[in-house]
Amino acid sequence: MADLPALLRAELGDVVVTDPAALEAARSDYSGQRSDSAPLAIVEARTVADVQTALRFAHAHRLPVVPRGAGAGLTGGAMASAAQLVVSTSRLSSIVEINAADQLAVVQAGVLNADLGRAVEPHGLFFAPDPASREISTIGGNIATNAGGLLCAKYGVTREAVLGLTVVLADGSLLELGHRTVKGVTGLDLTALMIGSEGTLGIVVEATVRLLPLPTGDPATLSATFVDVVAAAAASTAITAARLRPAAMELIDARALSAIHEHLDLPTPAAESVQLLVQFDGASAGADAGVALAILRELGAQVAMTVDAEEGERMLAVRRAFHPAMAARGSVLIEDLAVPRSALPAMVAQIRAIEERFGLEIPTVAHAGDGNLHPNLIYTGDTVPAEIWEAAGELFRAALALGGTLTGEHGVGTLKRRWLEEELGTPQLDLQRRIKEVFDPLGIMNPGKVF
Amino acid sequence: MADLPALLRAELGDVVVTDPAALEAARSDYSGQRSDSAPLAIVEARTVADVQTALRFAHAHRLPVVPRGAGAGLTGGAMASAAQLVVSTSRLSSIVEINAADQLAVVQAGVLNADLGRAVEPHGLFFAPDPASREISTIGGNIATNAGGLLCAKYGVTREAVLGLTVVLADGSLLELGHRTVKGVTGLDLTALMIGSEGTLGIVVEATVRLLPLPTGDPATLSATFVDVVAAAAASTAITAARLRPAAMELIDARALSAIHEHLDLPTPAAESVQLLVQFDGASAGADAGVALAILRELGAQVAMTVDAEEGERMLAVRRAFHPAMAARGSVLIEDLAVPRSALPAMVAQIRAIEERFGLEIPTVAHAGDGNLHPNLIYTGDTVPAEIWEAAGELFRAALALGGTLTGEHGVGTLKRRWLEEELGTPQLDLQRRIKEVFDPLGIMNPGKVF
Ligand SMILES: Cc1cc2nc3c(=O)[nH]c(=O)nc-3n(C[C@H](O)[C@H](O)[C@H](O)COP(=O)(O)OP(=O)(O)OC[C@H]3O[C@@H](n4cnc5c(N)ncnc54)[C@H](O)[C@@H]3O)c2cc1C
Ligand SMILES: Cc1cc2nc3c(=O)[nH]c(=O)nc-3n(C[C@H](O)[C@H](O)[C@H](O)COP(=O)(O)OP(=O)(O)OC[C@H]3O[C@@H](n4cnc5c(N)ncnc54)[C@H](O)[C@@H]3O)c2cc1C
Repeated sequence: MADLPALLRAELGDVVVTDPAALEAARSDYSGQRSDSAPLAIVEARTVADVQTALRFAHAHRLPVVPRGAGAGLTGGAMASAAQLVVSTSRLSSIVEINAADQLAVVQAGVLNADLGRAVEPHGLFFAPDPASREISTIGGNIATNAGGLLCAKYGVTREAVLGLTVVLADGSLLELGHRTVKGVTGLDLTALMIGSEGTLGIVVEATVRLLPLPTGDPATLSATFVDVVAAAAASTAITAARLRPAAMELIDARALSAIHEHLDLPTPAAESVQLLVQFDGASAGADAGVALAILRELGAQVAMTVDAEEGERMLAVRRAFHPAMAARGSVLIEDLAVPRSALPAMVAQIRAIEERFGLEIPTVAHAGDGNLHPNLIYTGDTVPAEIWEAAGELFRAALALGGTLTGEHGVGTLKRRWLEEELGTPQLDLQRRIKEVFDPLGIMNPGKVF
Repeated sequence: MADLPALLRAELGDVVVTDPAALEAARSDYSGQRSDSAPLAIVEARTVADVQTALRFAHAHRLPVVPRGAGAGLTGGAMASAAQLVVSTSRLSSIVEINAADQLAVVQAGVLNADLGRAVEPHGLFFAPDPASREISTIGGNIATNAGGLLCAKYGVTREAVLGLTVVLADGSLLELGHRTVKGVTGLDLTALMIGSEGTLGIVVEATVRLLPLPTGDPATLSATFVDVVAAAAASTAITAARLRPAAMELIDARALSAIHEHLDLPTPAAESVQLLVQFDGASAGADAGVALAILRELGAQVAMTVDAEEGERMLAVRRAFHPAMAARGSVLIEDLAVPRSALPAMVAQIRAIEERFGLEIPTVAHAGDGNLHPNLIYTGDTVPAEIWEAAGELFRAALALGGTLTGEHGVGTLKRRWLEEELGTPQLDLQRRIKEVFDPLGIMNPGKVF
């Protein structure tokens, strides 16, 4: 068999990395999973042409390609294994243009989400998708997973923030999709199709993204404590039903809250106490918070409220400490269900029931404003034990039964493939596979992921 | 040759219409164009099963199918001709569910946009896409064209308002796409792919749409008069650049304004005077309008402002009278360019130049908040004269050169096919064609449209 990395290095030079430590790192992402062996090589692309050359090469040799951003994904989408070529866009990290008049930016795929945010802030603008991983994940990865975040209930997910894409297809050809205009309906919306496609259709190398004006004035933030998680979930439903539009509304269940408090060295919260954090922005922030305060109190919560931005940020810091607090407890399978907002209390009750049935603790946080829950399943060791998978399966089925979905924002990757057909049904899955074939007839793009 | 309408009637009964007047009407839409002959028959579907039966039949007989909503389209997308079967969804007009808690509605494809609006208003909710045709166009047609409207710069186009779809494919099979949740990323986003596909991929029979809370308080509305259209366009760009977010921002050029005044029996406006209408909603409406007022005056406009909802509506009524005012002048080719917002003044100047070059009058309005212009080309007779097409071609090329697109919201239909490749490029067009083939291998879905 030919020495493919050497052949590729002859074309691309030092951007072809075969250093064992780097190859080892490419076996996993933040899901805590790991592939069974290391990939052949990594192309640390510095230019769009590098990506094209790598794909042309892979295409000619029918070599499977795993696109990779920062590897902050939670579903194993960027995990690579033997006889696969990783093409990383993380060094394609230029902000090509910030256009304040048109409220857009053109960025290469490897730009970190938070770096874009900092670059556009002086223009009074922001990039709305704000995954909790924004300091460590790339815009390309955000696009490939259609990432959401705290602000998404009000400001939309990544799909709403992307106007156009430059994509390298499986055969190395370059495709420009979308436009710089706010609106445009010329032909099929392939930009939208690429968003959330998890590297199975092509590699995103550049994006034209929409920016929004930063809300003016200080936000108003509420921290509500309940003694019952179903009541807290019902309160978030009541706030939505009152037609308030919080910028963020986050639920932290009792197990999550006590783990966070322990991690941050805060006083132990009262047993079974649950937190609902609600932040409003814009001109009506204070007034809206007042209405929400009344609803929360009516539903039995103890509520603290602030119109100070920094104090509000301190309240939200509790939520932001969730991932590190979980990681400190062991290996974590981070789940990502979504249900219609009114089903949040029912879903939360189901999680409790599944905990009891399996004798597990499932600390859970939720982007309550859009019905997206992150139950965390903690285990020890390197591999997810069978009973944890069984419990996860029960969680998915409960979400589907409530009219929900397997994944609100993290994607399918390798971890949720086995449930895909249950949600989509065979005919749709089949149609999706045939669409993938149009983009990637040889099946070299991220094989074994999603489909 | 078999009597296909009779065969189909044997299966479907009276929903198969062959009345000559009805067939004649199906030759055209609101584009003012007409196909060269009448279609074979129309299926006025009453049930989803009717649509499935019609498509199974068409598939078996390789009969081309033209999906049709209300026929309010402006690009000939629903025009049918000889040996084609029209499948109309306009009688599928039930609102299946309004769920105020989850802020969504489930509607059949034939529900009129404005009917949905009226049905959800008592719940304090609204359906954001508001094409000027909302009283006469269907949600299915809005979805098939990804319709926009006055409120879209702030609240998003149809794509942002659709959570899930039920679609009948070319072979009569039924497909459920998307979900009832706000977020969801399971597999490829086929819901987004269907939106704007103009009947070329399948027939939408039902949609789960997202509703938004109605903004509270009265809107603040400004009517600014300029003596120069480029200055008015520059003012709209300045308002966007000031990071204000008007709910609607509409530009009416001098020719459009005088035609509307004539049509509404209003006093003749001063020569060359141009109007920019700006409406703000929500809690900061008054304050935002104050900032916009200062910008408009600074740029030389005469401005009237009101915080009264009814008076604001009267100001906008001038804009809403544009289509009837044009129709009163003769046959109209309504164009639909979009450019990056900062290019609006340049595009408006190009329209002036093209008018002069061709010795034509091109009255123009624009959804200025999102850079979407509607230049109207007026002619006499039934067919668009060659020189009108030439002028339209020049308009498209000017928009593309400014980083814009052929169509902001009306779609491609039959009228813009000839320019499609210029915008998309051959490789993308080819990819789009192959995706269409996956949905419709026999090529029976709306042939001759878009592609
Ligand atoms: C602590 C923590 C918190 C998180 N919080 C959130 C959250 O709030 N919301 C949320 O949505 N996600 C969250 N995530 C998940 C993750 O951060 C996102 O999925 C993120 O978008 C991944 O970006 P990445 O650059 O790390 O991509 P990677 O992990 O490298 O890749 C993710 C997927 O995208 C593909 N991909 C990457 N780059 C490209 C490209 N250029 N072209 C084509 N395909 C590509 C990969 O093949 C893979 O399938 C969180 C993760 C962590 C670790
Ligand atoms: C006065 C006037 C003002 C307008 N203003 C606007 C505006 O502000 N913004 C805007 O975006 N548009 C506007 N339009 C254009 C038009 O109203 C929209 O395109 C509308 O969405 C068409 O809906 P319809 O039900 O009439 O569809 P039709 O005209 O019947 O069909 C339009 C296209 O959609 C397809 N189609 C229809 N129903 C289905 C279905 N159920 N499944 C699959 N495909 C289907 C047809 O094949 C065709 O290609 C305007 C039109 C008029 C006449």
